[in-house]
Parts: sequence; C-alpha cells; structure tokens
Amino acid sequence: MLEQFTEPLRYEGLRGRDIVSAKDLSRGDLEAIFRAADTYRENPSIYRNLLRRKTIALIFVEPSTRTFHSFERASRILGCDVIGIRDPSMTSIAKGESLHDTIRMIESYGADLIVLRHPSKGAALYAAEISNVPVINGGDGGREHPTQAILDLYTIHRKRGSIDGLRIGFLGDLRFSRTVPSLSYALTLYSDIEIYYIAPPILQIRREVEIYLEERGVKYEKISEIESLAKILRNIDVLYVTRLQKERFPDPSEYERLRGVYTVTPEILRIARRDIGIMHPLPRVDELSPELDGTPNAWYFDQARWGIDVRVALLSLVLG
Amino acid sequence: MLEQFTEPLRYEGLRGRDIVSAKDLSRGDLEAIFRAADTYRENPSIYRNLLRRKTIALIFVEPSTRTFHSFERASRILGCDVIGIRDPSMTSIAKGESLHDTIRMIESYGADLIVLRHPSKGAALYAAEISNVPVINGGDGGREHPTQAILDLYTIHRKRGSIDGLRIGFLGDLRFSRTVPSLSYALTLYSDIEIYYIAPPILQIRREVEIYLEERGVKYEKISEIESLAKILRNIDVLYVTRLQKERFPDPSEYERLRGVYTVTPEILRIARRDIGIMHPLPRVDELSPELDGTPNAWYFDQARWGIDVRVALLSLVLG
Amino acid sequence: MLEQFTEPLRYEGLRGRDIVSAKDLSRGDLEAIFRAADTYRENPSIYRNLLRRKTIALIFVEPSTRTFHSFERASRILGCDVIGIRDPSMTSIAKGESLHDTIRMIESYGADLIVLRHPSKGAALYAAEISNVPVINGGDGGREHPTQAILDLYTIHRKRGSIDGLRIGFLGDLRFSRTVPSLSYALTLYSDIEIYYIAPPILQIRREVEIYLEERGVKYEKISEIESLAKILRNIDVLYVTRLQKERFPDPSEYERLRGVYTVTPEILRIARRDIGIMHPLPRVDELSPELDGTPNAWYFDQARWGIDVRVALLSLVLG
Repeated sequence: MLEQFTEPLRYEGLRGRDIVSAKDLSRGDLEAIFRAADTYRENPSIYRNLLRRKTIALIFVEPSTRTFHSFERASRILGCDVIGIRDPSMTSIAKGESLHDTIRMIESYGADLIVLRHPSKGAALYAAEISNVPVINGGDGGREHPTQAILDLYTIHRKRGSIDGLRIGFLGDLRFSRTVPSLSYALTLYSDIEIYYIAPPILQIRREVEIYLEERGVKYEKISEIESLAKILRNIDVLYVTRLQKERFPDPSEYERLRGVYTVTPEILRIARRDIGIMHPLPRVDELSPELDGTPNAWYFDQARWGIDVRVALLSLVLG
Repeated sequence: MLEQFTEPLRYEGLRGRDIVSAKDLSRGDLEAIFRAADTYRENPSIYRNLLRRKTIALIFVEPSTRTFHSFERASRILGCDVIGIRDPSMTSIAKGESLHDTIRMIESYGADLIVLRHPSKGAALYAAEISNVPVINGGDGGREHPTQAILDLYTIHRKRGSIDGLRIGFLGDLRFSRTVPSLSYALTLYSDIEIYYIAPPILQIRREVEIYLEERGVKYEKISEIESLAKILRNIDVLYVTRLQKERFPDPSEYERLRGVYTVTPEILRIARRDIGIMHPLPRVDELSPELDGTPNAWYFDQARWGIDVRVALLSLVLG
Repeated sequence: MLEQFTEPLRYEGLRGRDIVSAKDLSRGDLEAIFRAADTYRENPSIYRNLLRRKTIALIFVEPSTRTFHSFERASRILGCDVIGIRDPSMTSIAKGESLHDTIRMIESYGADLIVLRHPSKGAALYAAEISNVPVINGGDGGREHPTQAILDLYTIHRKRGSIDGLRIGFLGDLRFSRTVPSLSYALTLYSDIEIYYIAPPILQIRREVEIYLEERGVKYEKISEIESLAKILRNIDVLYVTRLQKERFPDPSEYERLRGVYTVTPEILRIARRDIGIMHPLPRVDELSPELDGTPNAWYFDQARWGIDVRVALLSLVLG
C-alpha cells in the first residue's frame, strides 16, 4: 500500500446514506470504510475537528456501553456536538411519545445525523423513513447491528489481511443475536466464505439468514452437537462467540447445562489452528475464559478498540 | 423591519434576572426576546460562542426531553459549559439532599445561571431566593413553565404576525397543565385577547388563573360541553391542545371516554377557520391525529423547533 | 509566600500515579496539591486547557453528585474530553459485564486517566492493577475516598493556616464512612494530631483505622457517650460531621433516637471554641442544622466548593 495518509479519505458512495442493515453495504463501501479507518489510525490529527459544526444525535433507548460511547468518542474526535438521549425514564418516551415524534424533534434541533438503538425490530428503518438526515442503526432489537458487523470485518481484515476465503464459526446464542445476522449478511460480499453455526437447536440461526446465504450461494452448516466442535476448530480461521442470554431459556437447568458446554477455555486452543482468532462483540459474561485474554488468539479487545476507528471512518464518510 | 441582524440584540431589561413565572415578564421583555430570536435565526453565526466561559447548570429532577435538550443545545450554541444533573437516582437527591444544598453546591461549582425543573410547585421561586445567580424555571410541578409560554407566543407572533386580537382555545387537561397557566398569564400583556378553556369540569382551568385574567380584564369562557366546540372552532385563530394524563382520572373508563372525545382529527379543519393554527407543547400521545402533521395548520413542530431559538435569545439576554 | 502564580505548579512526584488510598500520599504530595490548588485559585486562566487532548473517564456505578460533577468540571476546565459512565442500568454492567472488561474497554477508547466510584471495597485497587493509565479512587464502598480527604485537608489548611497540631472530632456514622478513614490516614502525615471519634458503639471507627493510627503513634480517643461531647467541644479545632445512614440500623427506633442526639445545632457553638470549624462531606440530611449555615464556623460549603480547585490541582499533577 502506497497511500500517504496525509488527508482524510474521500469516497462519495456513503455520503448522506442511511445505514440500516448490513445488507445495504457494498464491498466498495466496506473497503472505503476500512481505508478511512486505516488513515485515521495512521494519522489521527487529520480527522480532528473534521466535522466541526455538525451535530450528531445518539438516541439509545436500550442499554449500551460500547456502541454508545464509541459513537460519542468518534463524534467528539471529529469535533461534532452531541445530543445524547439515553435514559428513557427521564425523557418524553416515559410519557408515551412515539418514535416518530422523537425523531422529528431531534431533527428540528439541528441534528445532522441520528444513531438509534431501539428494542423494536425495524425501528431503524422506520426512523430512516421519517428522517431527512442519515440514520445509522445502532442495534434494533434482535434484528441487526450493522456497525458491529463493519468493525468485525475490519478486525478480520486487519488481523488476517483479507476476508476472502474465510472459514468462520459462530458459537452461542445465534437465534437472538443481532450481530451474527449482520456479519453473516456482510460476509456474502466476499468470495469463498464458509460459515459454521454452532448452537443447540433452540438457539440456532434464524431461517431468514439461511435464505439470504442460500440465495447468494454462500456455504454454511448448522451444528447442534457440541461434540462436532473439535472437528470444526481444526478447520476455521475465526471462532465468533456470543453471550447466552439466561432469560431466553424457559428451563433454567437447560441454561446451566449449556452454559458449561459453551464456555471457551484455553483447552480449545490445543485443538484449534494455531492462529485461530477468537472474537466476541462484548460484553461477555462467562462464555470466554479470562485465561484466553493474554493469548494472541484473543482478538476481542482489539475488536472493541477498533470500534472507535471504524466509527470515525463511517461518520466522516456519511457526513463528509 | 429594517433591522440588520449583524450583531446580537442588546437589551438591558432581562440582564441578571430570574424567570420564575410568566407573570414576571413585561411586553417589552417578550418583544426583546422575539427580536433576539429573529436575529439568531437570520444570522446564527453572531451568537456562536457569544457566552464563552459561562457555565449553565441544568438541574432536571423530573423527566424532560424538549426542555432539557433545547436548553442544552442553546447553551452549546452560545459556547457555554453545561453542568447537567438529571437522574435523581444517581445523585445526592437520592440520599435525601435538600434542594437548598443542591443549589448552593451548583452555584459554588461556578454556575452562572441555573435552569431548574422540579416536581414541587414553588421550587423555582425557592431556588431563586437561595441562589445568587439567575434561575430560570424549566417547569415546577403543575404550576408554571414560563419559557414554554415564551416560545408559544413567539410561534403565534411568527405565524400570525401579531398577538394582539388573538382568539385562542385551550383543549384537554387544563387543570394539571403548567403551560396553559403560563401562556394565559403572558397573554394578559396583549390587547383584545379572547380565551376559551375547553375541558370537562374535572379538568377545567384552575381558579387562580381565572382571577388573574379577571383582574386584568381579559375575556375568557369555560366550556365543558364538547358539543360547543364546533361553534368556537369557527371563531378562534389558535387551538392549543394538551395531553390528557391518564393517572389524573380516578375512573379509567372516564379517561377512555374523554380520550376519544378530545382527539383532534382532520375533520376539525373542515369546521374551523381555514388558517387555524393547531399548537401543542408536545409530547403528544394520541390527542393529535398524525394525519394533521402535513397540513399548514399543524404549528406544533415549528413550535418545538423554535424552542432552540427562543432559548438562545433568552440566555443571551439574561447573561449578556 | 512569594510565589508568583504565573504558571501551573510543577511537581514530578504524582505524575502517572494511581490514587487508590490516602495511605499512598506523602506530605510532599499533599503540599504540592495544595500549592497547585492555590495557584489555580489565584490565576485560573493558566490552567484553562492545560490538558487539552487528554481524555478522562468517569466511571460512577454508585450515586454521586459532588464527586462526579467536581471531577467533570475540573476536567472541562483543564480542556479534557470526558467519557462519563454513570447509570449502570443503561450500560453493559446491567448485562453482567465484569469491572475488568469495563476498565479494559475504557482504556482502549483512549482514556488517559480513570476515576472510579464503585460499591465494592477494593474495586479501585483492582482497577489500578488492570489499567495501564492512572486510576483515581472516587469512593470504593465503605473503604476509602482519598480525594475527599485531600479536599478536607486543603480546607483545614486554608481555614486554619496549618494542619500540624490539629485537634479534630469526628461525629456520626464512623463505621460505614469512607471519608473518615481516608482523612484519618492522611492526618498521620502531620505532627501533634489528636483525634476524637464520637459515635455510639455500633457506629464506631473500624479497628483497621485504629491499628493504622497506633502504628504511627497518633493520639486518638473513642467516645460513645454523647454526654462527653461538651468537654471535647471546648478542646477541638474542627468538628467533622457525617450522615447517619438509616439503612444501617437494624432497629428503626434506635436510628430515630440517635438522629436527635447527633444533630449539630447552633447551641453547640456556645460550648465550643469560638473559632471551631464545622465540616461535613455533604450531602447532609438533618444532622447539621441550617441555622449554622450563615456562621463563620460553617466550613462545609467552602469545603465543597474547593473540591473543584483540589481536583483541578490533582489532575494537573497526575497528567501534567
């Protein structure tokens, strides 16, 4: 790469666009975001105050640490004002205000871009339809979380050099995850991908994701016997782990049983490829043993950290 | 108007003053605020960072979206630092701290102005007595909300050209509203005003408001039969709608009945004057049909939006 | 003192250090902080934006007003960016994230310093071990609150001229207080100190504090009969009052009884030395009569106010 990193990356393809679903993104969009993130990492000063006078509204009506704070940090780095609506109990949402009116209000207060996290599936799409400014989906219920998918891909891109040819296993609660579908959708943009969904039947990937992959000819396999994990581990480049959510299980004893089975420990590294990358959207509870933290296979802290770079890149391209 | 809008409006009358009640304001004060808001709208750049180095404390111990965020935005536009105390459960208020001590503390932290929203009637007056810096009432229980009244008047002024001669109907919960009394008090500063309070007896305007109007010779009428609404609609310039608050009704079925009756729908526009303005302090629940949103009669989104302009104007005149 | 106060105080001794316990501080450290605070008070403009481009993370997973907002104000004065994590219910902590991962994340988001308030004893020490950037303990359960001790000492230093030779009485709940131990530890750095702990047996100072004082030969006395208070009042320079916390009492009637007994009223001033200083970490509930507020003996509002100065000083020396 002979890029000079002396000025912010220019790319027209994302300007003014909503980012509601990972399905909205092209490979060119993703590559532009990666190059902008690389540029920011190499020379952060050229991004400082790049978007001065712009105002970014963060409407987060569900808990969030990483997504909220990384968007906030990215906005501050770019010199933007931030309007942060977080705690629904302290806002009009507690008085029964509709999402429609909240979006209209925020826009009328001068927001140039809205990031929305909302418990309802489809909330981001609805907000994008109402709003005259770009809307970025910061997670809508169990449906999608496209900026998480972008930073996941950026992590693979940086760690592995390329995304083409990737063999990836998803482990844990795939049914109620919003990051696993978003990343799966985005992976269809790359060639020679193989995906393994490893989960008990009640937590397996949703049918809509399978259909999307099938339509695009992406190879995938659903594995519900944890015994098969060993075989897969020898074959995959990345193991992407998600949190089991206790409240999803009708039978608590079933949760306790699976929780033990789905814990990723250092033993796994003895079976897996030596350079396997362990990823996790975080927060983790106990599905990832802390003993993994110091190993080169633990990609999850870099993955979280690069969330800032990716969001600086994305905001700069959408608002640039 | 031959004003040049090349510099922020100067007006000594509001400098350093508390804004506790709409009764505190003179017509000259209101006109200065309107002119400052017009100046800001015409040439926002001259207000950018006008109050750099000033610190504004927003103490909001009751839910708020519009009032909190519009004051916050206005403060940022003027270049002020903001100290935001919002969630009482995360502050000393949860430990039983008195309002007296909270105000003393905030002042000692360098606040140059305090905006207070508080559930108790009279909280703003009490805070103003304690504090050495100006206090603006951001809503005190069901008593008053003077900055809402200012932006309501500004909306009428901009939409209608003048406030003198106004015929206005208030519809909904007038008893527990704080915006209706504040706006009623301020209207007494104008000539040839007629007010219609349209509500069931249990939600009618409080006697203290009536007395204030009577003392100033302002014409008003209380209407408790919704059947009379049609006749009034043909006569009024503005219909100001407020939210029915379910928790005020001892009998839920009574709430359900009135809720249907007090819903403003596009049919109303067929009866009303063609240029009637529909206002609402927002948030609305379902008392204003969304079908009204696209009509020129729907003033409520502009009303919300201009809240920023009015608060920039007010802060600049109080702290200028 | 012939200091010129024309530039920020320089002192290498605190640079890059964690402040977990008041035991970590030397007398030289404290004197540097006091001089820096004096310098800031004399000439605030030289501290404005001194730490531009630094980022300070405030992680407060327990209620706080004064500590949170004074650190936030101090950070803003110094020109720092602030990452504020406050409401655990809106963050990953609600999803079961460990403190370890929260600290790692905040650090990876570019924090140059972390201030932590946490309900668990030892949380700050643990965070300091994980983190590569300085950690300041903003209160860890009932254990310690070292920055409160620093501002308490600064108050005594300013009001009294010196700390050596101090006679101080602590009154109220000493068992569950974190400010009383921290201040007691720091007092061992000064000569000729005498401490009186005045509390019923169930609320007396913890044994670990006694041992620390004994090892350092500091004179102290535990007094559980409120009748002896009169005698002590004639002897002490400072009466340091803390809040009785109702929830600590198994028997509510016992709380009601002690609450009356431990209320400090103006009568106390008739018995005490004329220049006695009354201190309190605030918030107070009703253990300090408001009638004291106007007297020169009421040091507690200055004490709160100077929290800003002390924290500007501390941050400038740790990050400078």
